[in-house]
Amino acid sequence: MSLISVGTMAFDAIETPFGKVNQIVGGSGTYVAYAASNFISSIKQISIVGFDFPEEEMAELRKRGVDLEGVEVVPDKKSFFWSGKYHLDMNNRDTLVTDLNVLADFNPIVPDSYQGAEFLMLGNLAPNLQLSIINQLKVRPKLIVMDTMNFWMDIAMSDLEAVLKKVDVLMINDGEARQLSGQFSLVKAAKTILEMGPKFLVIKKGEHGALLFHGDHVFYAPALPLEEVFDPTGAGDTFAGGFIGYLAKTKDISFENMKTAIIVGSALASFCVEKFGPNRMKEISKADIDQRLKEFVQLVNFEIDLV
Amino acid sequence: MSLISVGTMAFDAIETPFGKVNQIVGGSGTYVAYAASNFISSIKQISIVGFDFPEEEMAELRKRGVDLEGVEVVPDKKSFFWSGKYHLDMNNRDTLVTDLNVLADFNPIVPDSYQGAEFLMLGNLAPNLQLSIINQLKVRPKLIVMDTMNFWMDIAMSDLEAVLKKVDVLMINDGEARQLSGQFSLVKAAKTILEMGPKFLVIKKGEHGALLFHGDHVFYAPALPLEEVFDPTGAGDTFAGGFIGYLAKTKDISFENMKTAIIVGSALASFCVEKFGPNRMKEISKADIDQRLKEFVQLVNFEIDLV
Repeated sequence: MSLISVGTMAFDAIETPFGKVNQIVGGSGTYVAYAASNFISSIKQISIVGFDFPEEEMAELRKRGVDLEGVEVVPDKKSFFWSGKYHLDMNNRDTLVTDLNVLADFNPIVPDSYQGAEFLMLGNLAPNLQLSIINQLKVRPKLIVMDTMNFWMDIAMSDLEAVLKKVDVLMINDGEARQLSGQFSLVKAAKTILEMGPKFLVIKKGEHGALLFHGDHVFYAPALPLEEVFDPTGAGDTFAGGFIGYLAKTKDISFENMKTAIIVGSALASFCVEKFGPNRMKEISKADIDQRLKEFVQLVNFEIDLV
Repeated sequence: MSLISVGTMAFDAIETPFGKVNQIVGGSGTYVAYAASNFISSIKQISIVGFDFPEEEMAELRKRGVDLEGVEVVPDKKSFFWSGKYHLDMNNRDTLVTDLNVLADFNPIVPDSYQGAEFLMLGNLAPNLQLSIINQLKVRPKLIVMDTMNFWMDIAMSDLEAVLKKVDVLMINDGEARQLSGQFSLVKAAKTILEMGPKFLVIKKGEHGALLFHGDHVFYAPALPLEEVFDPTGAGDTFAGGFIGYLAKTKDISFENMKTAIIVGSALASFCVEKFGPNRMKEISKADIDQRLKEFVQLVNFEIDLV
């Protein structure tokens, strides 16, 4: 199965209580590709970078089976840059700098060779760009997963509503779910959002795990309790990449398999936060992932005879 | 198996976004007794009340198998009174009034008929009172579970440290675990606290569930996602009562069985928050509990073939 992944490839500057990096590769598309490439070898990337994006990073992604034909390289502009600072409670962060650079002119084009992909991951981008990608596909993918953020709810809500009608899975965090639905209770928020288009809703709660809603069903995946969350940057995108990568590998988009995919996404994210940027994602092996999945089984598994 | 439960029996005034009550029965001992009585019929209560505590509440508890010989009734004083207000984020609350009343003179005495109990639940009280109870028992119970709060860490830390050395299970919330250990990471906090005496640590995270630590093992129990948390008062004590009640019923204090006991406690707590005070706890049947336990299995159960 092949996966089209649309998202940013960028530079980040990150400060956490444990250290600081002035420039490290980042971007939602980068994290999705690293995570998903643990499961499938046919990832078709759509993104835009400037002259400064490292060729060795491109080479590393190609080596992992990521097709970069859809990545536009702008020779006279810099790559998208984000700078942020985390405090001890890593569920919140301060954005210090956002330099759009190449992203200001991003007009994603789906290469002909990408047509026919069964899975589509729409990273957090302007909703009109997400919609443009969907409209360019000659055959609707079997599964469309999208991310978004509060910024688009503030300034492009009608575009966002149009995209929501066309996707299968929406992945947002708890604050975004509350804003999008106007409901404080996440159960009520999910009901409202599932009426806006998506058949599945994943609400990410950072260190408190993630919830998957579908009809009247709900599934709860914990986050692995870690001694140290070194740098949470990219954890949400890594989660998404693990989720859709596992679904694409297993070719099963049932609710039951999505439960497992969420655990897989959580396991991948638990690696991501162990080092700055995507560094840890470049090191891990299938054996590492299997070991961590076993830890998740231990973490939530219990026996019960009803009382 | 019999259980000694030490805790307050009191009145609360509660305001939540969904309503207000000016006087309702409350207190940690009351909630523990209602929850545990779903599993065992030999609960030996130790508490203190004033002239105003309702006889019909006592009768209801007796009907559920709660022995009240250890509940001192002070004829010329009022019962302990607490008043609090919750906001939309129910994980935090403002205490408006705390009238100690009878609690100021509480000097708990273990009746002779209570001696030999295999389980002891020490509700949140001054650590020197908790210690006094332990010291009055001629045979050490098979399992001692204790609750405490940040207030005692502030003003009675050395007493608290002395009690911690004598108990098996400590149950506190995430903020209290951080304060007690001086560690922000809950995994590091657990390591520190498990060196202070208890062999098991339960960290309660409200709507985000609970963690059970034991040696290098960790178990994560989610809270059931609810449409409405109507009133969280007593949820932590109900959780504790369900936990120790289930352990006493099953006579198994292994880590594996404690996992199940935490799910049971979570299920009981999910009922408690549906109505003001302990009202919902008086209504539920074994069938209701079984049904909710099935929902917990659905909530966290997943299948995985390692990747």
